[in-house]
Amino acid sequence: MLVLGVDPGSQITGYGLIEKKNDDLTCIHYGQISPPRDMPFYKRIHYIFQAMTEIMSRYGPQEMAIEDLFYSKNIQSSLKLGHARGAVLIASEQCGVRIFEYAPLEIKKSVAGYGRASKEQVRSMIRVILKLKDTPNLDASDALAAAVCHLNWSRFKPF
Amino acid sequence: MLVLGVDPGSQITGYGLIEKKNDDLTCIHYGQISPPRDMPFYKRIHYIFQAMTEIMSRYGPQEMAIEDLFYSKNIQSSLKLGHARGAVLIASEQCGVRIFEYAPLEIKKSVAGYGRASKEQVRSMIRVILKLKDTPNLDASDALAAAVCHLNWSRFKPF
Repeated sequence: MLVLGVDPGSQITGYGLIEKKNDDLTCIHYGQISPPRDMPFYKRIHYIFQAMTEIMSRYGPQEMAIEDLFYSKNIQSSLKLGHARGAVLIASEQCGVRIFEYAPLEIKKSVAGYGRASKEQVRSMIRVILKLKDTPNLDASDALAAAVCHLNWSRFKPF
Repeated sequence: MLVLGVDPGSQITGYGLIEKKNDDLTCIHYGQISPPRDMPFYKRIHYIFQAMTEIMSRYGPQEMAIEDLFYSKNIQSSLKLGHARGAVLIASEQCGVRIFEYAPLEIKKSVAGYGRASKEQVRSMIRVILKLKDTPNLDASDALAAAVCHLNWSRFKPF
């Protein structure tokens, strides 16, 4: 079972691929999609769609984990986040990757033990859980956390 | 020159196609994309992407006119609108249709003479301008208004 975790954003979209064999989790790859800053906004959204499609085609995950629709306090950033998240969802549907959504609190709780953990605490736990030698950026570690959350839940869910 | 106007929304996305020959505007087709209400949100976004792609492939517009990123007062609707608008932008980029964005006030002013016109007033003017016999729904007439606005502007712009 190969799971892709994604943390979408119009400036940086983090992603991470985790393979589960028996009960072992192995990080296969992680990174971030950063459209060039001088690109018009609509081209940035298409850039994210294309990059996500390429990653899914190359690695062939069966399932994708992403944060649920959550409502920040900022209208402008919500509108932009919506575009980026839409690009990720469309790429998944186009590539036949099943989508699973989790609340941000649920993801943090699953990885760091409590829902109000900081991004840095989540990253530290992700490094331990996946035995990473390097330090991923915070967008990639949030993406890996979504994938770990999904793999933890899917032990109990009959998909 | 065939121009597609779009008024995106996660529940209803209006669209309309206008052809310009010499200085005459002819409405070729208009309608609305309404994903089934019982569909999960992420499937609705993919539905809009697929429907827009189909319309663009069938009619082959060269250019697409859409409302600029605008900020409503409601965070939840902004986030959902962002997903739908992203689906339209990605379809356009995938189909090689050039994207032109206009402020809502600019579109209303271009069609109804002033920027605070109601949707009903915009629709009445659209019916006159395009000599429509039927009454489009308000999402389709807003989409047609975006296309008319673009065709009015493009008289003066050296694209």
